Amino acid sequence: MKQTNELNHRIGSKKMKLVDASGHPLAGKEVTFNQTNHQFLFGCGAFDAVEVANKSVPADRLVFLEEKMDRFLEVFNFGTLPFYWGRFEPEKGKPQTKELKAAAQWLKDRNIAVKGHPLCWHTVTAPWLLDMSNEEILKTQFARIEREVSDFKGLIDMWDVINEVVIMPIFDKYDNGITRISKDLGRVGMVKEMFAKTREANPGATLLLNDFNTSINYEILIDGCLNAGVSIDAIGIQSHQHQGYWGREKLEEVLERFSQFGLPIHFTENTLTSGHLMPADIEDLNDYQLAEWPSTPEFEERQAKEVEEMYSILFKHPLVEAITSWSFSDDGAWLGAPAGFIRADNSPKPAYETLKKLIKGDWNTNVSAKTDDNGMVTFEGFLGEYDLVCEDKKGSFKLEKEAETVQLVL
Amino acid sequence: MKQTNELNHRIGSKKMKLVDASGHPLAGKEVTFNQTNHQFLFGCGAFDAVEVANKSVPADRLVFLEEKMDRFLEVFNFGTLPFYWGRFEPEKGKPQTKELKAAAQWLKDRNIAVKGHPLCWHTVTAPWLLDMSNEEILKTQFARIEREVSDFKGLIDMWDVINEVVIMPIFDKYDNGITRISKDLGRVGMVKEMFAKTREANPGATLLLNDFNTSINYEILIDGCLNAGVSIDAIGIQSHQHQGYWGREKLEEVLERFSQFGLPIHFTENTLTSGHLMPADIEDLNDYQLAEWPSTPEFEERQAKEVEEMYSILFKHPLVEAITSWSFSDDGAWLGAPAGFIRADNSPKPAYETLKKLIKGDWNTNVSAKTDDNGMVTFEGFLGEYDLVCEDKKGSFKLEKEAETVQLVL
Repeated sequence: MKQTNELNHRIGSKKMKLVDASGHPLAGKEVTFNQTNHQFLFGCGAFDAVEVANKSVPADRLVFLEEKMDRFLEVFNFGTLPFYWGRFEPEKGKPQTKELKAAAQWLKDRNIAVKGHPLCWHTVTAPWLLDMSNEEILKTQFARIEREVSDFKGLIDMWDVINEVVIMPIFDKYDNGITRISKDLGRVGMVKEMFAKTREANPGATLLLNDFNTSINYEILIDGCLNAGVSIDAIGIQSHQHQGYWGREKLEEVLERFSQFGLPIHFTENTLTSGHLMPADIEDLNDYQLAEWPSTPEFEERQAKEVEEMYSILFKHPLVEAITSWSFSDDGAWLGAPAGFIRADNSPKPAYETLKKLIKGDWNTNVSAKTDDNGMVTFEGFLGEYDLVCEDKKGSFKLEKEAETVQLVL
Repeated sequence: MKQTNELNHRIGSKKMKLVDASGHPLAGKEVTFNQTNHQFLFGCGAFDAVEVANKSVPADRLVFLEEKMDRFLEVFNFGTLPFYWGRFEPEKGKPQTKELKAAAQWLKDRNIAVKGHPLCWHTVTAPWLLDMSNEEILKTQFARIEREVSDFKGLIDMWDVINEVVIMPIFDKYDNGITRISKDLGRVGMVKEMFAKTREANPGATLLLNDFNTSINYEILIDGCLNAGVSIDAIGIQSHQHQGYWGREKLEEVLERFSQFGLPIHFTENTLTSGHLMPADIEDLNDYQLAEWPSTPEFEERQAKEVEEMYSILFKHPLVEAITSWSFSDDGAWLGAPAGFIRADNSPKPAYETLKKLIKGDWNTNVSAKTDDNGMVTFEGFLGEYDLVCEDKKGSFKLEKEAETVQLVL
């Protein structure tokens, strides 16, 4: 554990009394504390969990995907599952609830927190909405939220409720049902309605607004939503950097601007590639797709450096509570970009090792201490879950920010 | 009166019964209807009214300003008076209430509707706010709103409540008290608080939000405010076109975007100059000030054409209810620009004549009709105030959109 004052907000301490089954203090014993999980959410898109959990691909592909997910599990504790309406329910009334439940359960069984993405978005939305009146579209969108959020309660208690609202009513690439209703309701009205419906279906869930627009537009939108009484639990910021790493200055500037609300910030969709940069004049990233976009040793080194700097800046910021890199692997990466921590053959890139060192090394606590005559021991470490070992006995506990004295029976 | 379907929203009709003092119908009589005022607000900055009403300048200057105001009164029915805090109350506790009341009364006596501008703004605000804590600044801003809005109730029932909120919390040209508190409250919070205070002091007033930013930022801000329950009566749009006329396309695009709220739109600060254009690379118009910025015959023709097109587009749009050109005269014009309808020597430019022809000619109703056997006469005209003359008798009435039959005793 490398600990500096800069990371005080990530660290907690706990005073514990260790006793045996008959209540006698375990005095003068050597105790080791091993962190098994972070409170901070380190995530990636975990779309492959759907095929792995459902074994819905040929055997050799399944082996490959299982190996990929093993690499994922070595480092991450958080995954995003896809709920794009157009794919989740391509035919009205036939949602892939079973398949997604299996995936969420698979991740949960492996101690991975899961977020659903997204409940409302104008892109990849259900094409059959176009046959409806605006009134029906809204009703159907509400019903879809109610269904998914209720069906997955307990498995998924975190949702990107609504995605890319800044552009939603003026999105003009193609007609779609969600842009239509967003013109009626307005941006703040859309957010308000979708959040209310989601909250109703799962009051305890963590609900996010998510956008790639990090300009003043998004600030004003959030400000408006909060003043309109929308209970946003975390601000979602996308950071697809196919056109080049933002760098420290822009990153800190964005953090400063979005900190004004005092709300938790999640970096929801991060991309740093290990290939050549996408030209700066491409406005919509979707417009740039190549037959091949190779990962190269030189750019893999650059990616590793950028990952190290960016994750360090974000981990240092007290309001950031989650970072999700969008593509865990180059295999299946968005836009075919070499955006993964591992290559298309599942081999780890330098960025994978760098990040693993941070998450499982620098920011991970593994320490020993000795109990005093009363069985008391004080311990300090990064927030999260711990195993405690004392001779042949083992316990586990959660370290949260609030200090308290607890008694542990071993 | 030149009437087309495009202007139907500006036109009303009225069925009237004319009777004499003893109640007998005035049958078969020739009646003339002369429009004396518009419902639509055609305005300019009327800052000179302060010196004219208070006679606070040397005699020759007073004569000059009176002549200027005569030209103003020939065309306009609406004027904006300055309430910049730093000028209105340069020394704390000594506001220029008396002087401004005299000006407002002077305008009211001449049938000019008056708007106060602005109650809250970061520019030209009271410098002595800087000595206060943020809590005190907010309290003082509230007290200032309460004082002005109450003092002027009946004389001024229309206010630019808060000005340029999009930039307010990030305004970085110099430190000022209003930017400070806007950082605490946020944009929507500022608007909400200032509107609430103004509404409390004059519930029946027409309250505007005003901005030069016509981007999506302002749209989202308005959307947020409305969803937060702020009762905005009209959306104020500045259009200082020192760098060139927006043209039909941009104007219609702005109108379309800001029409989404269904609220009245006021063009609050319009500028079209009769001089060379300010270079396009100037970001803050205040950064461009010349010793001399001449009005030339060539550019005066251009200005007249632009005024004709712009006013016609705005008058045609059903939601626009007011147009204020910021500088009536080149004398005292903002930035020293040749932005007036009249030159610095009070001589009218072509734009003055063009606009007068529209307001007092094309969009003005002066018609005759004959009453029937029952004294009934039906009349159609541009909305506003009318004199009616029948032989040696005279009446007056207001023509509003809602049609009704009225009995007029002459």
